[in-house]
Parts: sequence; structure tokens; C-alpha cells
Amino acid sequence: MACSTSKQVCARLARLRKEFAARQFSAWIAPTGDPHLSEYLPEHWALRKYLSGFTGSAGTLVVTETKAALWTDSRYWEQATRQLAGTGIELMRDGESATPKIGEWLSVSVPKNSVVGADLRTLSSRVAYEIEQILARRNISLSHDGSVIDKVWKERPAASLNPVRVFEYGGATRRQKLSRVRGRMRREGASGLLISTLDDIAWMTNLRGDDIACTPVFLAFLLITRKQALLFIDSRKIGKEIVRSLAQDGIECRPYEQIWTEALPLVPENGALWLDERRTCSLFVSLAQSAEYSIIDSIQPTMEMKAHKDRRELRLIEQAMEYDGAALCEFYSWLEGALRRGGALSEWRLSEKLHEFRARSSHFFEESFTTIVAVDANAAEPHYTPEKTRSAPLKGAGILLIDSGAQYDCGTTDITRTTAIGDVPKEARRDYTAVLRGHIALASTLFPDGVFSGQLDTIARMPVWQIGEDYGHGTGHGVGFHLSVHEGPASISPRAPAENSSRVHPGLLVSNEPGLYRAGLWGIRIENLVTPVKAGSMLAVPDRHPPDRAGDAL
Amino acid sequence: MACSTSKQVCARLARLRKEFAARQFSAWIAPTGDPHLSEYLPEHWALRKYLSGFTGSAGTLVVTETKAALWTDSRYWEQATRQLAGTGIELMRDGESATPKIGEWLSVSVPKNSVVGADLRTLSSRVAYEIEQILARRNISLSHDGSVIDKVWKERPAASLNPVRVFEYGGATRRQKLSRVRGRMRREGASGLLISTLDDIAWMTNLRGDDIACTPVFLAFLLITRKQALLFIDSRKIGKEIVRSLAQDGIECRPYEQIWTEALPLVPENGALWLDERRTCSLFVSLAQSAEYSIIDSIQPTMEMKAHKDRRELRLIEQAMEYDGAALCEFYSWLEGALRRGGALSEWRLSEKLHEFRARSSHFFEESFTTIVAVDANAAEPHYTPEKTRSAPLKGAGILLIDSGAQYDCGTTDITRTTAIGDVPKEARRDYTAVLRGHIALASTLFPDGVFSGQLDTIARMPVWQIGEDYGHGTGHGVGFHLSVHEGPASISPRAPAENSSRVHPGLLVSNEPGLYRAGLWGIRIENLVTPVKAGSMLAVPDRHPPDRAGDAL
Repeated sequence: MACSTSKQVCARLARLRKEFAARQFSAWIAPTGDPHLSEYLPEHWALRKYLSGFTGSAGTLVVTETKAALWTDSRYWEQATRQLAGTGIELMRDGESATPKIGEWLSVSVPKNSVVGADLRTLSSRVAYEIEQILARRNISLSHDGSVIDKVWKERPAASLNPVRVFEYGGATRRQKLSRVRGRMRREGASGLLISTLDDIAWMTNLRGDDIACTPVFLAFLLITRKQALLFIDSRKIGKEIVRSLAQDGIECRPYEQIWTEALPLVPENGALWLDERRTCSLFVSLAQSAEYSIIDSIQPTMEMKAHKDRRELRLIEQAMEYDGAALCEFYSWLEGALRRGGALSEWRLSEKLHEFRARSSHFFEESFTTIVAVDANAAEPHYTPEKTRSAPLKGAGILLIDSGAQYDCGTTDITRTTAIGDVPKEARRDYTAVLRGHIALASTLFPDGVFSGQLDTIARMPVWQIGEDYGHGTGHGVGFHLSVHEGPASISPRAPAENSSRVHPGLLVSNEPGLYRAGLWGIRIENLVTPVKAGSMLAVPDRHPPDRAGDAL
Repeated sequence: MACSTSKQVCARLARLRKEFAARQFSAWIAPTGDPHLSEYLPEHWALRKYLSGFTGSAGTLVVTETKAALWTDSRYWEQATRQLAGTGIELMRDGESATPKIGEWLSVSVPKNSVVGADLRTLSSRVAYEIEQILARRNISLSHDGSVIDKVWKERPAASLNPVRVFEYGGATRRQKLSRVRGRMRREGASGLLISTLDDIAWMTNLRGDDIACTPVFLAFLLITRKQALLFIDSRKIGKEIVRSLAQDGIECRPYEQIWTEALPLVPENGALWLDERRTCSLFVSLAQSAEYSIIDSIQPTMEMKAHKDRRELRLIEQAMEYDGAALCEFYSWLEGALRRGGALSEWRLSEKLHEFRARSSHFFEESFTTIVAVDANAAEPHYTPEKTRSAPLKGAGILLIDSGAQYDCGTTDITRTTAIGDVPKEARRDYTAVLRGHIALASTLFPDGVFSGQLDTIARMPVWQIGEDYGHGTGHGVGFHLSVHEGPASISPRAPAENSSRVHPGLLVSNEPGLYRAGLWGIRIENLVTPVKAGSMLAVPDRHPPDRAGDAL
């Protein structure tokens, strides 16, 4: 997308501050969020990007009468510094111990007894609660306002009306999935279960959509009670055939906006409502609390179910990997030729070319995330992506990092290769060797079925530690089945919580991607997707195993 | 202590149930807890042990009109099975996914709308809240009762009146510690800080006591406001000299029981009260909530401060290690001779002998935990301890595991050695090698300053995984300075949370103790205490480093 100028950003902040007086707000919080707490946002909900000019995928902007600050994590510090220049927005380095939390910063930046505004559809209940707790010490409250966004954002894109499509691959049916979920609800004593997360809804309904770039999901809420299942969705994007087939499987459609008014009355009054406060917006949770529902705040059962792929899904994913691998081979072969021929090459040109090779497959839908093609110093920013107008040339020598993936009709891929073009310094070779040793260490270790996913992180990290370095990201993340390229709840990360939902069992699809980044010089990352296979009484995540035996013994 | 018979246990449960009617209780929860949530309890508070006959250090007993169940973790399943036999108390294997939580079990075991009783001084606020949340779904409430314990427990030991002593080692003074804590309170916006945990209070006041076996602490609460510091303690155990010296440093003494009535009024009414809900009893937190204090629920600052030892403390701890090492050398030398001579040896005799050698040092106070001397199958129970009347003989051959430690006036020790007596099977040698490789892997790895302590766990575990095995405990725990042998917040465990308070910095004192347990055959564990030293830009936790350079470069 086009970048906003600092002048535009200043004008937008001024427009936002104008709205403060009428609402008696002392500040406004603009998180990266939609009502589904999606990781990647539909453009309709990208208010934080619009207001700040910062285009990274994570960050929260806070604006007071006189100050503005943006919290984002280490992946984006360099990019944010560049994009915030001249806007007057201060960068808050999230994750550094000296950085105050949002609530703490607000507490000393706005008057006691004042009111801070936010669109509470775009903040998770857990995050809002943490901010509220800190603000309460100075009697500052957090108040919902859903109208500021349209007032300030004149050019706001309309909500997507892209059609929803059926995604049947011959695996578990909607009815089977509903029945498993209701079984879990009975065991938890829940009368209702609210699912806000879009990939869970797509998985439950065996439908896919096109409301968010790179992720085949559609905006909806799903409420399941013991007897009913309601899909809150804009009727303009779901065909009559699908509505009928959903109804046959016991899922009724309702208008999207009715989630705020009609959902709660469907749950028995003295019943317990199951929702995950980390993955449900604050507005809905406060509505449920006001209606005096007792809330079961626990991870929704669909997340574990969809994270562990069945045998059929794993076989299809293997197919997707083959399509993807073939495209990569063609691409690298083309690249070798192009380098030999000595034509003008750039990061952007490579990303276009890679898209071309992938798009030749009839199974290809779109990229699963924005392709990263990064040369030398650009590769040191783990989330750098080239743009048409901002792309480094490929000269005779250098380190080339390509991290890319795609949505195929049979699965989602994600792969990173780092290659040396021409001669590279011996320090780069040493760094590459450490990362490769980390990757191989994880690929060749044995571990017990049921370890917490976070326990595997150190295995790939140790060889990098041994040469005195580290990397700021996790070693791996879950990947969906023709769904999100980042799929929870398991992740191979030092920060992954030791919860039952993060245990590693056969069927999980995760990446193995250690890295090493030297600011100003180069970045290295080596990534494959892997899935646990049995190895005697233990499990292993080897890079390769016979495709017809996915999930079987090594 | 003497074990209770199953008949005694049944009579006690009957006495407890008799109290239900007058109080309209449908059940009673007896956790392992005192008002300070101590890991090891003063005998005065050991109600759970009294009621159930189960002597393990962790577990919660729940008794309804017709049923009783005891939750305890894998360390104690074998012991609990043995000790609960014939009592009618069902063992609930805590940590297994099929085991219901206490609240869930209660929900289906007592009538809707009923009341469950507990002494809410002995449950942490966090744990009580979790149980309450689940019970609330069936409108069951949790109610405090402090009188049941005395009614049911006729032989209840009196509270300890052992005298408190000064512990000055020439390091930071009380005034310095108070000033650091008040600095943190200002930064957090706290008007008051309540400390319930006994080792933090001993550390803050530079005092030690003798109220709990193996841990030189004394029962007290400490409330710190911006201007005052109040030590709630039984005046009979604290000398006038100490009271005077405390007062000079700005710490006033108040009667222990006044914590429930006089503490809160000392905190400014519109102020925020800092306490750690995981480490503060539910009764106090509900009193604070009723008084409408806003609560800062965050780990108390003293925990991180005392976990990271200063240079002087580390030097003294090295001295304690030397006293302890010398005693162990003498013990193992004696053992070699005794084995050669072929006299009758038993686990109990060895533990007595080890005590003898340690007690020869004038710096020795007491063991820092009950000595584990375990032969063969007994060693497969990680927390087995011999008793005078229940102790295996040392025959010609076998695996001998000794895990022991002591309180010296200059530090706390904890060390485990596993030795082969005579010929042992080659499988035992293979197991020992895997554990030793794990220990050495951690001792020789490099890692960045500031990693989460849990990240180090996998390093020692991998060699054990490689032979298809695992161990159920963490790889290491923090250790106090003449304080608790298990000291938080850092621990080298898969379950250690990824919180700032768990980061590893120089000064931390932790154990490195991987293990491997084969039920019915043998157990192996190799443990040293280690502290991070600098190694270039990284840290390392080697087994040995020059004592005069503790905390310095490797």
C-alpha cells in the first residue's frame, strides 16, 4: 500500500483530537484489531495504520491531547522509526524492560478521573482488562466508542463483500465437528460457546472466504448452544445454496450486526457462556457480564481440534508442499540463469517472478503472506518486504533471504531459504552454519509425545547461542490447513505458555525456522514446515518422511 | 513423623463432617497451606496431613458428605496410593489431563446452590478465585471458616514460639532494602505493599527464625507504606533488642493477629495496594477488596531482589559449599570403608551418618530439607525419604541416590549424587550416562543474559530424551541465601512462566539436576548448585569457577 506522509498523519491525529471534546475523552487507544482480533486485518479495520502511517502488522497507537505514542515489538522497531519520523508519534519499544505498559504511560499522561476512549470491538477483553486495572488506580476509565472511526477516517474502505465458498475435502463434516464441540461443552458445563476467531469459524463450517488478504477467511461470529448454532454473517456474501446446506447441518445464518443484540438472549439465562477472553473482543464480554452470565474463560475447543490435522489433511498438505517445492525449484533455476546472464535484478522483481511460478499451478489461490525477498542488510529486518518503489538491486555478491508461502486448494505453505550469491564473508558462512545446525538439531531430536511446544525452542537456538548470538523471534509457529499461516495455540517459542492446549501431538503442523540477524550486514533464516512422526516411544520432527506415512512411524 | 492409621483418618473425617451441619457446608477444602502460603508448613498448620494421613509436601484434600479426594502431583502418586489405602479417600492424579480440577469435581459432587467451606487463610487468592469461578456456574459459593480446624483437630500443635535472631552478614542493610522497595512502589504507583511470604520478610528485615523445619524463617506479615513499615509478629518470639533495632530502621512491630484488622487502615484510602495474589491468602485479599482498595496484582519486588545475590552473598555461599563438600567427602570415605568392612547398612543409617558429618561444622544449623537416601527402586520415587522404621538395607550391589543439603550460617546447600555400589546392570550405566550428559550439557552451554529461566530446561533434558526417556520434575530451582532451599521466582522448568521476574541474570543461585527414574528398578539424579558467570557476551552456569570471581567472567 502507499505510505502516508507525515503531514497526512499529523492532519489525521488533529482530526481525531477534535473528537475528544464532544466525548470528554482525554485520550484514544487504536490497537491493531478487528472484532475478531485477527492477526492480519481487513482494510476496513486498519485504523491504527491509517492514523499513524506505520504499516507493520502489530502495534498500538495511543493519542492524548498533546502526545502520541506507538507500541510495537522488536521486529518493527527499525521500520517504525522510519515511518513515524516527522509525525510526532513516539516509538515505544515493546518488550524492553524500560518501556512502560500502555496503561502506565496513560496513567501519567492524562488527568486523574478522566476517560480514555477506544473502540472496544477491536481490543481483546484480556488486554482491555489489563489496561483498565492500571488506569483504575487513578480513577481513569476506559469507554467504548464505535463512531470515532468513521468520523475521523473519511476514506475508510467499505467492508468486504467477497463471496464465501464451500471447502469440502472429504474429511470431518460440519455435523461431526459440531458434535465434537458440543461434547466438550457438556464436559465443561457450558450452555453456550462464542467463537470470534475467523479461522476457527472457517474450520467449523467447512467454508472459506476472501475478506482478508493471504488468509481465506470471512468475517462472521459463530454462537453454539446445546441446541442451536448461529452464524452471524453479512447475507450479501453467502449464497442461498450454502445457507441451505448450513441449515441442513443445523447452522442458521443471522445478520452480522445482530451479534451485539441477538446473540446473548439465545443462551439460557442461568447458563454458563464459554469464550476465550484473550480471543474475544472486550465489548462482547462486557455485554455478557452486564447480562450476568457466568463466563468460562478458557481456550475455545476448536483451536486444538483444528491444530491437529487428521491423516487426510496431512496427505493433502504434503501435496501442497510438492506444488510449492516445484515452483521454488523452477524459480531458483530461473534465478541461476538470470544471474549468469547478468541482467538487472531486484528484490521486487524476484518476488514477482516467484509469484509467477507459483501461480502456474491450478491449485494456487494466493500468497499466504507478503513475500519476503531481502538482500544483505534488508534481510537483517526479519519482517522486511520489498515494495515496487523500494527494493534493493541484486548485485554480484550478497546474502539473499526468501521467506514465502502460498494458499493452495489443498493446504498452506511457508518456507525460507537463504542463499549466497557469489562470494560471501566467512563470518556469514559461520552464521549460516550456526543457523543450519540449529535447524538440523530440531529436525533430528527425539522428544516425548505431549511436551509443551515451547520446550522445543531451545533446541534450535543452542547452536546460535554457542557462537554468542540469538534471534528475537520464536523458532516456529503452527500453520493452518488452507487457513492462517500463523495458527495457534501451539508455537515453538520461549513465550509459549505451558498450557495443555500447547502440547505437541502427532498431527500438528509447525515451522522450524531458526535465524540470525546482523543489523546492517545480513540476515539468515532456514525454514521448513514439519509435523511430528513417531520414533519408537518418542516423537520427532524430521524435515522429510514418506508422504504416505505422514503421522506414522519414522 | 508417625503415620496415621486408616482408622484414625476415618474418625477424623467423620469429625469434620459433623461440623458441616451447623455451618451448612456441603464440603470442606483442606489445602497444603498456612497464612503465608509456605511450601513447607509449620506443624501448627498441617491440617491436610492430619485429616488425610498423607505426608507429602503438596496436595489438597476435599471432603464432601459422602466422598473424599486428594489431589497431588506425580512425585507423590505412589506414596499417596500407599498412605490413602483403607481411608476411602480417592487419589486424584494432578497434572493428568483426565483428572478433573477441584472446582469441577466439587461442582458435580455437591448440590447446586450449596456452600463449600475452607479456611481462606490457607488458600492463595488466585487459587481460591479459580475454584470460585467454576463453582459459580452452579451457584455454589466458597465460604471462610477459621474455627473448623480447632474443632476437628484436638491434638493440634501450638504455634511455634521459637525466638527470632539477627542475621547480619555485612551486605545490604534493612534501610537500604526498604529504600529500594519504596523506589519500586513509587514507580508502580503503590501506596502500600503487603508481603506475606516468610522468606521475603526474613530477607527484608535481615532476621531469621525457626518456625518451620529446614527453613530459617519466622511467621509474620510485613506491610510497607510510603511512610511506615509494620511487622506483624507474635511479640513473645522477638527480643526487645531486636524490636528496638527494627524501630531505629523504621520498622514497627505489631501483634500478629492484627494483620486482619489493623493493616488495611494504615494504607491511604484512595491508594493502591500492591500484593501478589498468587502469594497472598484469599482472606486478606477479600478484606482489601471489601474495603475497596484498588489492587496491584503483580509479583512482589523483594522476590527478584533476593533471588539475585550480591557479590558478598555469593562469596559466603561458596564458603557454605566448601563446608558441605568437606562433609560429603568424609561421608563417602566412611561409606567406602563401611562397605568394605561389610557391616549392616541401611538408608536410615546413612542419613544419620551424613547428618553427623555435617553437624561437625560450627557453621551448621540444620538440614535444608529432609535427606533423601534411596537405594534402587526407592530412588525411582523422586521424593522418597527413609524413616527409622521404613528403610531399605544396603546390600552388596545397587544404585544409591543421596539428595541432601544444609543450612549454614553463610548459606544454603543442596546436592545430589548417585553412585553405583558394586556391579550394576549396563542399562543403569546407560541411564546414568544420559543424565550426566544432560547435566554437563547445561553446565557447558552459553546463553544470553536475560533468557527466561524455563528456556534452559530443555538443554539438560535432551540427552535423556535421546534414549527415549524423560523426567517429571524441572531441571532446576532457585536457592535462597540461608533461606528456602526452593526459592522463586526463577526455576529451570518447562512450566516456568515467561515473565520478566523469571529472567536469568548474574547473581541467581539455581540447581542443575536432571534425572531419570525407572519404576521398580532405580532412580538417577545428579545435582550441583550453579550461578551464572560471564563468558564473553554470553552467560554460562559451569559446575566450578574460581570462588573469588563469583559473578565475574568465566
